[in-house]
Amino acid sequence: MEAFRSEEEYIREINKRAVLPAGFRTGASELTFFPSEKKTDKPYKMNISALVLDEPTDSFAAVFTRNRFPGVPVILGKRMLERPFCRGIFCNNRIANVCAPEGESRALDVLNVFSSLAGGNAADYFNASTGVIGWGLPVAEMRHAVPALVGALQKDSIFPLARAIMTTDSFVKVRSAGFDGARITATAKGAGMIEPNMATMFSFVLTDADIPGEKLRKMLPAIADETFNCISVDSDQSTSDMLVILSSGKFKVNLNVFEEQLYAVCKKLSGDIVRNGEGTAHVIRLVVSGARDVAQARTAGKHIINSPLVKTAVFGNDPNVGRVIMAIGDWAGNGGIDVDPLNVIVSLGGKTVFRKGVFDLGQKKEKELSAYLKACMLDTERKGYPEHDRTVELSVDLGLGKARAESIGSDLSYEYVRENAEYTS
Amino acid sequence: MEAFRSEEEYIREINKRAVLPAGFRTGASELTFFPSEKKTDKPYKMNISALVLDEPTDSFAAVFTRNRFPGVPVILGKRMLERPFCRGIFCNNRIANVCAPEGESRALDVLNVFSSLAGGNAADYFNASTGVIGWGLPVAEMRHAVPALVGALQKDSIFPLARAIMTTDSFVKVRSAGFDGARITATAKGAGMIEPNMATMFSFVLTDADIPGEKLRKMLPAIADETFNCISVDSDQSTSDMLVILSSGKFKVNLNVFEEQLYAVCKKLSGDIVRNGEGTAHVIRLVVSGARDVAQARTAGKHIINSPLVKTAVFGNDPNVGRVIMAIGDWAGNGGIDVDPLNVIVSLGGKTVFRKGVFDLGQKKEKELSAYLKACMLDTERKGYPEHDRTVELSVDLGLGKARAESIGSDLSYEYVRENAEYTS
Repeated sequence: MEAFRSEEEYIREINKRAVLPAGFRTGASELTFFPSEKKTDKPYKMNISALVLDEPTDSFAAVFTRNRFPGVPVILGKRMLERPFCRGIFCNNRIANVCAPEGESRALDVLNVFSSLAGGNAADYFNASTGVIGWGLPVAEMRHAVPALVGALQKDSIFPLARAIMTTDSFVKVRSAGFDGARITATAKGAGMIEPNMATMFSFVLTDADIPGEKLRKMLPAIADETFNCISVDSDQSTSDMLVILSSGKFKVNLNVFEEQLYAVCKKLSGDIVRNGEGTAHVIRLVVSGARDVAQARTAGKHIINSPLVKTAVFGNDPNVGRVIMAIGDWAGNGGIDVDPLNVIVSLGGKTVFRKGVFDLGQKKEKELSAYLKACMLDTERKGYPEHDRTVELSVDLGLGKARAESIGSDLSYEYVRENAEYTS
Repeated sequence: MEAFRSEEEYIREINKRAVLPAGFRTGASELTFFPSEKKTDKPYKMNISALVLDEPTDSFAAVFTRNRFPGVPVILGKRMLERPFCRGIFCNNRIANVCAPEGESRALDVLNVFSSLAGGNAADYFNASTGVIGWGLPVAEMRHAVPALVGALQKDSIFPLARAIMTTDSFVKVRSAGFDGARITATAKGAGMIEPNMATMFSFVLTDADIPGEKLRKMLPAIADETFNCISVDSDQSTSDMLVILSSGKFKVNLNVFEEQLYAVCKKLSGDIVRNGEGTAHVIRLVVSGARDVAQARTAGKHIINSPLVKTAVFGNDPNVGRVIMAIGDWAGNGGIDVDPLNVIVSLGGKTVFRKGVFDLGQKKEKELSAYLKACMLDTERKGYPEHDRTVELSVDLGLGKARAESIGSDLSYEYVRENAEYTS
């Protein structure tokens, strides 16, 4: 179990994890601007940041949002996958560059300036933007801040970038693994709305393990399906979600070991995103088993973990078996799936609470489970560190087959409503 | 526009609407019990109530929840549809009789006592229960209260039953229509959780218009699809939802006029349910047009109106075009539907806010729309009457075809979280 008592303690740990693999540099710089879309006396702040490879690599892969209205960075990123090599990633927060005026030309304008200083061409870099939808990028101010960013590039730590990509995240998220002399270091931002308009999940994974590009392109979507695609805070995919992996190819490693380590890093990082979700007071881990196939287990899991009734019950530390049953029945009924309540088993915190068609929940067990839920709580006054990594363990056996799938979600708290509703135009 | 300034004013109006059609009696009585599932010093209250026809009718129809784990009343109700005639409906609140010990035998036990006094057999009555899932019916106490209920049956007003079926509803819901000398009077309860465990929607429609049973059975599901099935508060269907229509067949009427009037009554009643939903601060009416078919328009509408991000934005009086766009893109991307952002038009309060792939939203329009959203607000401190019937008018043209569908939903407020989370075991 991981638990931290202060931000200082957490940052010490993050700095250990943040060591960059060989062959990478990262950095960040700040700028201010006055959005043309909004009258304001106070300038807005924006961070720009970058990940740069010492040498271009042909070993890279990416997974993007399936949202039909993707931002410019997603459109550019898909083009990058057609190109022979990549030099890194250029990021900004504050503005998502989605449905925005001159979206592509402004992005390329900034990337041109960046690449002229950092090496190569605009098209050699992934672009990642998160923030308001509908606003245009402040090109002049961004161009002006690029030299400071390039000057700040260093090869020690991913920390400056990990902090610069944050929006409503309350703590920096970094995970890493070392093996066979090689290293994976990854950072993420997410999940839940970016003030004032939009959610975005970024995850950037760097490694100096020598893995062919085509292997990465097979591995990454499969791992994403079991990690980042299993998390759910808002039930909606943003217009800008992206997961990118870059390899500098410095060290030979065992492919299976690499895949295991990559999975472990992505798993932990996706859990961090939920833990740091807007208004998250409980992280819920739901295992759906007894499904006919994995796809069925996943759709059932998403339905149950996204049910506002299940989420509010967990927030209230209420071991509310009825709402879980209702959510299973609603999913099965709408999908025409012949789940038999008599074969369904539900358990919470390792204790069976429903089987053979009826509740298995006395007053003693109900009290114990309520205490269990309380012990899994996080403070919704968000701190700069994760207090603990306890999760509410919920499991549902559908009694139909042998397949299983896991989902990680958050509860639904007052703080979630506050963060997503309080916006003064 | 309808608006009420006090509970007294509203109750006066409801009493006008509540006049029973010819051939019906209704009544209610109260009881207290100590649930065996919970240690408590304070007894729980339950209402039992009934709708009774003077003569058995073969003209009746019903639509039930599609939830795969239905309560005993839904199971019994489906059997009723196989029977030649019906004598009425017997209801209780407080306990839903879902996944409960001896669910069916306890329900029949109470129905036997009721039918022995009110006429006919247990199987001649629909049964409707709403409340906690998992608890058993307190048979002895319910049997004891039946004579008072039967003694209270009267032919003037549906009001006593309309009030007795309420749970977390804050106001009585009755709608009616008169035409060709005949009458439709209907009541409903809903929507959102019933404390402490479960949501249920009931709607009971009575008429003295002479409509053959087979016509009702065609008409009712079609009308339900355009009214009750278009509303969404929690996005989940409960284990107990039911819509029942009974005709005493006293007056010949024009079938088309009847169908129009039935539609109008169901439409208004389904709107009342959303307006009185737990924590509803805005009622949202979403019209999705430009779909390839009605089913597509409906699924898009459900996705948009259930998006927690869209709902919290409306709660915050924020004309947040980005979240609507995100929700459309998420729906289209996940379903593999080739919506082109360039052809999508979104409008709010009658004003276009998105077209040709970009926002159409200046600072002036944004302010106006924020004021418009504020003017549509309801007090979440729920009153015993609806303050007004203004709705937030949102429309999305998908640009794919000519089909359209309407959905009615609620926003997502602190009060919603409070009502669904605050439950002390």
